[in-house]
Amino acid sequence: MSQPDTISVASPADFHVHLRQGPLAEVVTKHVRQGGFSLAYVMPNLKPPITNTEQALLYRAQLQAIDPAVEYLMTLYLSPELTPAEIRRAARAGIVGVKSYPRGVTTNSEGGIESYEAYYPVFAAMEEEGMVLNLHGEVPSSAETNTCVLNAEPAFLPHLRKLHAQFPRLRIVLEHATTRAAVECVKSLGDTVACTITAHHLALTVDDWAGQSWHFCKPVAKYPDDRAALWEVVKEGHPRFFLGSDSAPHPAETKATASPTQPCAAGVYTSPILLPLVAHLLESFGALDKLEGFVSTHGRAFYGRPVAENDRRVVLKRASGKAVGIEGYGSGPTHVVPFWAGKAIGWEIVEESSREEIS
Amino acid sequence: MSQPDTISVASPADFHVHLRQGPLAEVVTKHVRQGGFSLAYVMPNLKPPITNTEQALLYRAQLQAIDPAVEYLMTLYLSPELTPAEIRRAARAGIVGVKSYPRGVTTNSEGGIESYEAYYPVFAAMEEEGMVLNLHGEVPSSAETNTCVLNAEPAFLPHLRKLHAQFPRLRIVLEHATTRAAVECVKSLGDTVACTITAHHLALTVDDWAGQSWHFCKPVAKYPDDRAALWEVVKEGHPRFFLGSDSAPHPAETKATASPTQPCAAGVYTSPILLPLVAHLLESFGALDKLEGFVSTHGRAFYGRPVAENDRRVVLKRASGKAVGIEGYGSGPTHVVPFWAGKAIGWEIVEESSREEIS
Repeated sequence: MSQPDTISVASPADFHVHLRQGPLAEVVTKHVRQGGFSLAYVMPNLKPPITNTEQALLYRAQLQAIDPAVEYLMTLYLSPELTPAEIRRAARAGIVGVKSYPRGVTTNSEGGIESYEAYYPVFAAMEEEGMVLNLHGEVPSSAETNTCVLNAEPAFLPHLRKLHAQFPRLRIVLEHATTRAAVECVKSLGDTVACTITAHHLALTVDDWAGQSWHFCKPVAKYPDDRAALWEVVKEGHPRFFLGSDSAPHPAETKATASPTQPCAAGVYTSPILLPLVAHLLESFGALDKLEGFVSTHGRAFYGRPVAENDRRVVLKRASGKAVGIEGYGSGPTHVVPFWAGKAIGWEIVEESSREEIS
Repeated sequence: MSQPDTISVASPADFHVHLRQGPLAEVVTKHVRQGGFSLAYVMPNLKPPITNTEQALLYRAQLQAIDPAVEYLMTLYLSPELTPAEIRRAARAGIVGVKSYPRGVTTNSEGGIESYEAYYPVFAAMEEEGMVLNLHGEVPSSAETNTCVLNAEPAFLPHLRKLHAQFPRLRIVLEHATTRAAVECVKSLGDTVACTITAHHLALTVDDWAGQSWHFCKPVAKYPDDRAALWEVVKEGHPRFFLGSDSAPHPAETKATASPTQPCAAGVYTSPILLPLVAHLLESFGALDKLEGFVSTHGRAFYGRPVAENDRRVVLKRASGKAVGIEGYGSGPTHVVPFWAGKAIGWEIVEESSREEIS
């Protein structure tokens, strides 16, 4: 079967991205469009986290000031501050989702949740208001229960099943799935449960981050068979599985270096190269024909944000094989280096509906 | 049960240590005694590897010149150069073992073996001569078979079983076991099969090296339940399980730093703090009474090097809680920083049979 030399994708949407704040946000927010994306579903784990409507709207205004051409869908950080009344205010203000971080499992998750029952009134309000619950699906490590970063996601799945049983109309997204167990679980659940998959988890296995801090993120990439499960569900074109890059910029210094007493930062940064990279990876496992579904229509359908007729289309063509620069972007505390640095991507963005917008 | 405030150990022996060569050897070889050890079973993975008797004797002479007070037991690197005739020469020259590295799984293993059948004549000669086969028990990763650094050791165990069945009188040591599967396998085999355990694998699980390059080594530390299996077999005082530190110094620069295109070095350095650290760790899981067996008598019995009446004893006392310095030793390409840097060890060496030898 011959492969195309150009592909076009309607209005790509990244349903999980970290745009940070302050000077780092100035550098990385522009990379959403550079990476080919029109919509960014923005994570709330700032310092302090975004826990109410005012903070979310202020944050959205800051992002819009940096790049007004991207649609920012905002989220709140699930915490005891979040009440059903606040959910109703947030929904009226256009805030789309609530992100749950189990305590202490990833970047800025110190305020994360310890048990879900206390939040049932919040979830009931979200269900009524049509808001989406975004789950970082890992439980904290515990030597007593043999739980560590490798099985923290499968150990979370009973919580997902229970939440879905309790709130069957609540739309829930299991974020950045990394295991066959998670893929099978989401497939087994109803149409209100979806799943994001990152670009880097389509590329990496545990061997790639063992000793390579640039590839270290939470959840960690798992076994080859787990990666194969991600490939299979993308190749199948399953409509409840779609891209959420979890693109997470960290200053290069904190990625490159560990001291004996301080590990490196957890996160992989993909925004600036995202659409070409996803095309490259999907082609590598024979799923290039599923690109538009995976990066646009599936997620947009789940979130009720379908592609509009006049939305921009992004055109990719086969690339010359130039490697992604290892120099990265920014400097000092804003110096970030993307994933795939030093390696070639088989596709590049050549055209959009409004060319002059491209930085 | 009250715990003692001093312990003495007869002639501690480290049955797996990397002493390197050149300027780095000058720094680290002295740390064998500093760490409380009288005997070092020396790995042959230099550049180029030690593959014949002359090289091994030359290397031993170099190590003796640096610190003559340690007994160095030498090994050869299993490779096509190694013939039955060379085995007989090596045995006559006092060389004790042959180390097998599967190709490409750890530091300087590019020349490692791909299949064992070709070496059966060598193993037959070793069996006759009473030499020991030391196995790095991991298979190379392969996405096709879902093999990665996490299950590379269990996947190796059938090779161990087969070798033992084929050469039941050949003494074999499965080096640096990290999994419950490996512990159970070795226990199930005959008295000619033993197993070393490192200090750091008694401390670490996968969570500790995820994003922390200083804790990255091969084999990687595994699940909490795997560590528990190591604790259990040490606590049991099983005579075929004993310390082989796999202390592996790497320049601090190569441990601390990864570039997007270059991972960090694999290895954990424990020599300078080894005996106090092992006492500390054994006490943490209730096995302090097994210290002498684990660090001296079990391994010495297996290797036929029992403690002699006039051998030195090392006395440990409870320590003041001073942290291991993060500054390390050496400088530039010889700058090495030990494991446990920045953390306190509950024991310290206070006395040996010949005090003036202590650096």
